Amino acid sequence: MLYFLFFMKERFAEFYSMLALDRRNSAWSRQDTFLHRYEELLSEVKEIKESLDNKDDENFKEEVGDALWDLLFLMVMAEEKGIFTAKEVIEGAIAKLKRRKPWIFTGKKLSIDEEVKRWTEVKKLEKESNS
Amino acid sequence: MLYFLFFMKERFAEFYSMLALDRRNSAWSRQDTFLHRYEELLSEVKEIKESLDNKDDENFKEEVGDALWDLLFLMVMAEEKGIFTAKEVIEGAIAKLKRRKPWIFTGKKLSIDEEVKRWTEVKKLEKESNS
Repeated sequence: MLYFLFFMKERFAEFYSMLALDRRNSAWSRQDTFLHRYEELLSEVKEIKESLDNKDDENFKEEVGDALWDLLFLMVMAEEKGIFTAKEVIEGAIAKLKRRKPWIFTGKKLSIDEEVKRWTEVKKLEKESNS
Repeated sequence: MLYFLFFMKERFAEFYSMLALDRRNSAWSRQDTFLHRYEELLSEVKEIKESLDNKDDENFKEEVGDALWDLLFLMVMAEEKGIFTAKEVIEGAIAKLKRRKPWIFTGKKLSIDEEVKRWTEVKKLEKESNS
């Protein structure tokens, strides 16, 4: 797993920098907007469902890749406009997983009911502290 | 950009390995299925649209992170079941971007019409070679 991760993250960084290049060097990509790319993402995500319904593993892999492409492109655009960086997106998601499911890091076994209860409690606390 | 990428890819690898841990250590996550997680992903993607409509940048960042979470979790599950790896997903997407838009790497400037024309031609050739 760790061995795989090493190569995977390098390809991830490569893909992200290629999409930044696409945004910079392609007039077609330069005219793109958040809303338009969101529509593309939504369409690619629905194609994941089709691949699952068709039990087409090769297509499943491709559609997950297409959805990742559009999701990362939204991040490239947000980064360009100074709204947020991809690093901030990932750090936010990491922090949320740590807050919502701390027991997965300790190996403590909880029942599904207990997991859902604790998750919901933390989510409620988060909403209260944001309002 | 390159400086940012270095840290971003490390956090990406960290997040991916945390999701693999979640899949392994959480009974709630262990019972998850591709179809159920797809529904979660679809719902998170639609929340991206809401954040854009509300012009809520902080929420936009969070929803992009939530969508990334579900998309990566699908990859974790596929990797566990031996269907494909995240590395293969990313390599497939990189190869597609290189095939479909080779000019972005040379700095050659094309009109949008010419870009769409070339993209469509390559896509057509791909479909013919797959059938």
